[in-house]
This record gives sequence, structure tokens and C-alpha cells, in this order.
Amino acid sequence: MTSNPETVAALPTPALVVDADALEHNLATMAAALPGVTCRPHVKAHKTTALAQRQHTLGHTGFTCATPREVVGMAAAGLGDDLLLANETVDADRLRAMADADARVTVAVDSDATVEAAANAGIKEVVVDVDVGLPRCGCLAEDAGRIADAARARDLEVRGVMGYEGHVVGNEDRAWRAEQTERSMIKLLRAHEIVGGDLVSGGGTGTFDLNTWCTEIQAGSYALMDTAYGKLGLPFRRALHVQATVISVSTKGWIVADCGLKALGMDHGNPSIDDAEVLFCSDEHITFQPAADSPADGTDRPGVGEHVRVWPAHVDPTVAYHERMHLADAAGRVLETWAVDLRGW
Amino acid sequence: MTSNPETVAALPTPALVVDADALEHNLATMAAALPGVTCRPHVKAHKTTALAQRQHTLGHTGFTCATPREVVGMAAAGLGDDLLLANETVDADRLRAMADADARVTVAVDSDATVEAAANAGIKEVVVDVDVGLPRCGCLAEDAGRIADAARARDLEVRGVMGYEGHVVGNEDRAWRAEQTERSMIKLLRAHEIVGGDLVSGGGTGTFDLNTWCTEIQAGSYALMDTAYGKLGLPFRRALHVQATVISVSTKGWIVADCGLKALGMDHGNPSIDDAEVLFCSDEHITFQPAADSPADGTDRPGVGEHVRVWPAHVDPTVAYHERMHLADAAGRVLETWAVDLRGW
Repeated sequence: MTSNPETVAALPTPALVVDADALEHNLATMAAALPGVTCRPHVKAHKTTALAQRQHTLGHTGFTCATPREVVGMAAAGLGDDLLLANETVDADRLRAMADADARVTVAVDSDATVEAAANAGIKEVVVDVDVGLPRCGCLAEDAGRIADAARARDLEVRGVMGYEGHVVGNEDRAWRAEQTERSMIKLLRAHEIVGGDLVSGGGTGTFDLNTWCTEIQAGSYALMDTAYGKLGLPFRRALHVQATVISVSTKGWIVADCGLKALGMDHGNPSIDDAEVLFCSDEHITFQPAADSPADGTDRPGVGEHVRVWPAHVDPTVAYHERMHLADAAGRVLETWAVDLRGW
Repeated sequence: MTSNPETVAALPTPALVVDADALEHNLATMAAALPGVTCRPHVKAHKTTALAQRQHTLGHTGFTCATPREVVGMAAAGLGDDLLLANETVDADRLRAMADADARVTVAVDSDATVEAAANAGIKEVVVDVDVGLPRCGCLAEDAGRIADAARARDLEVRGVMGYEGHVVGNEDRAWRAEQTERSMIKLLRAHEIVGGDLVSGGGTGTFDLNTWCTEIQAGSYALMDTAYGKLGLPFRRALHVQATVISVSTKGWIVADCGLKALGMDHGNPSIDDAEVLFCSDEHITFQPAADSPADGTDRPGVGEHVRVWPAHVDPTVAYHERMHLADAAGRVLETWAVDLRGW
């Protein structure tokens, strides 16, 4: 049902569109700030091996993954130099699939059960995941040595520690982020002292230049960005929007386009549209109103069939709804179409 | 990476699990209340032709769709007796694909542009979509005659009107829903008087037994239900949960399972877990705490590797993230595994 359009204007909608200039700026900025293996890009944000290949070409040979499917898919794409599953799993089939992948695979462990599952499946390398303040996975810093011992007792190589300050990365106050990152990393370094190993892995897009304690930063969102991270004053540009088509215009003032809840991650709230107020989203629709003083409120009011750019509030769960993304230049030409090939689990 | 498990316990997670008894109850209850074509089940809620087949077997031969892909997929599955795209589109390729499908296809129109696009693509039948109070698609009731005339001037058969009281269906106050439905349907009937035709289509799960004005009700969520509709006291049972696996247990009290933002529609807020408080969801995780007085807070506290049931707040965007759903009996046997084959656009 889809043709192979050469212009963004001809894409069937809703469509993920990546601004090639902004993407290149973002990738180059990160590669300059954290060259080589000091950035371990997180693929969960884009789930696209073609984009990961660009990060690899810029020198980031190690990658962070959130799911076994991301690990296996990255390996299949020839990007398996050093893949870290920065997440816990006890799924024996998936652990075996990762162990069998043509890649160097390291998984996070934070309990006896996750150590046992990894060892039983033939995984060779682990990091100890440490709770640094985000109420999620990770053992207490004071338990990290015990977990490392348990892993070594099962002949697992312990490469070091990881700890994600996810409760810090999204806060708009840079000074607060700096202070909280330090607090978190003091915990992680305490664990690292006991555990040993080369890796101290953590950080995210919101702390990429604040977290000077980690040996590698697990930033993912920097490549495509979203409106939530856009508020942080980071040196990365919004590179991803959802192109939508206006399908209805009400004489009462609102406009409806074909980009709804099944094309957008909604946990950070509504997406935004330039010069407009988004009223609400439903399954397949976004209803918005042009801002009172904008050209779109007057003669340039978009009509049925015209396109609008919808800026997602949260990039990761937005991308996960889409089968492909289109790389486009400033002239509106589609340069490449990439499969979002790491979706699912 | 997935095997073919015979029990729910062996499913890789996160997994959509459908309670076969609850589903049968829901389908039978609706088929008794609104037999045959008086219910036109909306497939957007489940996006699964195997489930639609069950609704068809119970006598509902007409279906409602939200996207062209749903229409084309239903036709390909042999369920094309009478498919209504209850949505506007001006996508010429997709309109042609629907016109060429082996099905009776009717599309909604609410403007000259949508009439023209439908006629140009070879669509034969339309309904006039009327704004009945939800700020989304639909022309004003007083414009419906003009739109119908424009359609007939292009040799389109006008089958009647539709108007969805989407601003009403989710409200927990039944008396308010009844009153607001009547107000909405007065508008729709006024349009119908001018437009003519056999169809007066509208309604949803929340108004299925209150909307006595429509000739057919476009209910979708009733089959699987969710926690939002669960608050309305409807005669339908929660039939869908996401099975998740506990991957981490903190000594500080919280528990983490592998069901996050990419497995759940979040626009209605957090999902729920029985006898627990959900703290937050992140991309691949749900963090929760057992309720203070529950067995799960004491000796029955779930451990790493155990399963929990996550009840989605909104079924439609939850299902759209998953490749398949598993029909299971009360004993935990997987009876059938269905592809969620109508995803995308």
C-alpha cells in the first residue's frame, strides 16, 4: 500500500521524518564531546540499525541495548563489537540467543537469579547493575561485591558496574542535575571499588557532559531528541518529527490531522505543533488550534490534505510504533528510508 | 527467538494474554444486546482479524475501521461483507487500495476535499460524518445536506450519517452519559433527516445500551476492555492483560517487571497491578510496590522470574505495540495465538 516516494511531501502519513542536517549535527556533536568508546549509544531510543551504523562509523563501537531483540538485531547487522544489555532478564531462550549471537555480549545482573540465568545460558560477561537513586533495577552499592563474587563463582567475567541516574537526566535545572549526578555516581564508584573491572557505565543525554565519573555514557535520545529533552538547553537539535496530514477542518476553529495515540509515545504528555495549541490526541487523530497570532490562524490556515509537523514529547515510545523512518534533507527530499528493525522484545 | 509455548507461564514477556472466558462472555453479551448488524464492531481496539472472525461468527457481519490498513486487512481475511472506514482520508493510494479490495467499502466524508478524494479513487459508498460534540472530524449538522449533495453529484452512494459521541463514552456518570448521548444524537438525527439513507452510525462501548437513536453501534473496546472502561459498571469483563516477568526486587521495597512504555498505551495514565501500587513506567519497566495489607507484601511477595498481570489503562494503543496476543483458558493453557495483523496505517 506504500509507494517509494522521493519527496517527504509524497510520504503516506503518519510518517517518521528525520532531519538529516540535525541528525548529523547531533551525532557529530556527541562524537566530539565523547569520542569513541566513551559514548556507548543506547539503541532503545531509535531501534534502527541503519542509524546505529552511522554512530559506529563516527567511532562509537560499543552500544547499549534495553532488550534481547536489540542485542540480537545489532549482532545480525554486524554491529556486535561490544553490546551491553543494560537491563535484567531471566528469559533462558533470549539469554541463549544473545549468547549465541555473533557479538561480544555483556549483560547486567543485580541478583543471584539474574547471575544464575546468565551463567546457565552461556553468557560470558556481565556488569553489576547498581541502584544509584532511580527506583528501578540495580542492587544496593553495598551488595555489589556479593553479586560480583556470585558471578565470578559461575565463571562469568565481571567487566565492572553500571548505574543509571534516570531520575536525574530529565530535570530542567542544570545545577540540580549536576549535583544529583554526583550523588548518584558516588554510590556507583563505591560499588566499583569493590567490584573492580574496567567499566563504569551510566549517564544519559541529559547528563552527558555532567557525568564525569563514568568511563562511558549510555546516551540515546541525543540522536533524534524530543520536546522533553528539548527543554534542557542541550547542544542537540530536534531531528525527528511525525509528518501528519490534515484530514478535517472545523468551522468552529479546530483542525484534525492523522497522527494519534498509535503514532506517539504519550507518557510525557501531548506532542506539540509549531504555532498551534494541541487540544488532545485520540487513537488516530490529533486535534489542534492555530495560535491566535500565528499566520496559521489567518490566511495560511492549513487546509485538508496539507501537512503538519508533530513534535513528539518522548522519542523512544514514539519510534517503537513505527515500521520505518525517513531521512530527509532541507529541500524535502527523502535521502534514505530506514527500517525500525529492533522493535519488540 | 520465540518458541511455541503451550502454557501462559512459558510465554516470553511482555505478552498480551486474553482470558478466553471473559472474551466469550463479552462477545456473547454484546451479541445478545445488539444482535447482527445493530452492532458494527470497531476493529481499531483489537486490530486482530482472528478476533474479528469470532465477532462475525456471532452475527456482526459489518465492521468499523479507523485506518485503510484495517479495511484492506479485513478484506484480505474474508471479512469484507460491509466495512466502514469511520474516518477521513485524502490519501489517493490508500483510497484506491480500499476501492480495489474484495469487500463492500464505505468511507466517511465531511468536506468537499474528502468527497473528491473518495470519488477520484473509485470509492462507491460514503456516509456523511457529523460533528455531534467531540472536537474532531465531522461537518456541522447544517452542512451535512450540502456534503451529501456533493457526494451524489460525484455518483457516490450516500448510505446515511455517522457521528461519534467520543466526548461522552468514557464518563463514569451514567446519567450524564445518557443525557449527553441524547443531545449528540439529536444533532445526528437532524443531519440524517436531510441526508437520508439507511445508516445512522455512532456510539461506543460506553454508550452501547444508552444510544437508542443509532441504527448501529460502533463499539470496539467491549471485547477486551481496559481499566478506564472498567470503571463504568458495564456488563463486560476485563479480558486482556499484559503478562510481565519480575526482573528485579529491591530491598527498599519496590519490584520491577518487564512491561514498560513500549508495551502499554499511556494516555489514560498508568496501568494497574492487583494488590499493588504502580509507581511509574519507563521504556521497558514497570516499578510497583505491593499494597501494605496484601499477601504480596508478606510471604507471597513476587520474586525474580515470577509473573505479574499488568492491566492496561487504555486497550487500543496497548494492543498496537504488540505483534501477537494469546488466548488462554482459566487453567493457563494457551488455546490460540493470534497475530495482531491490522497494525499500522
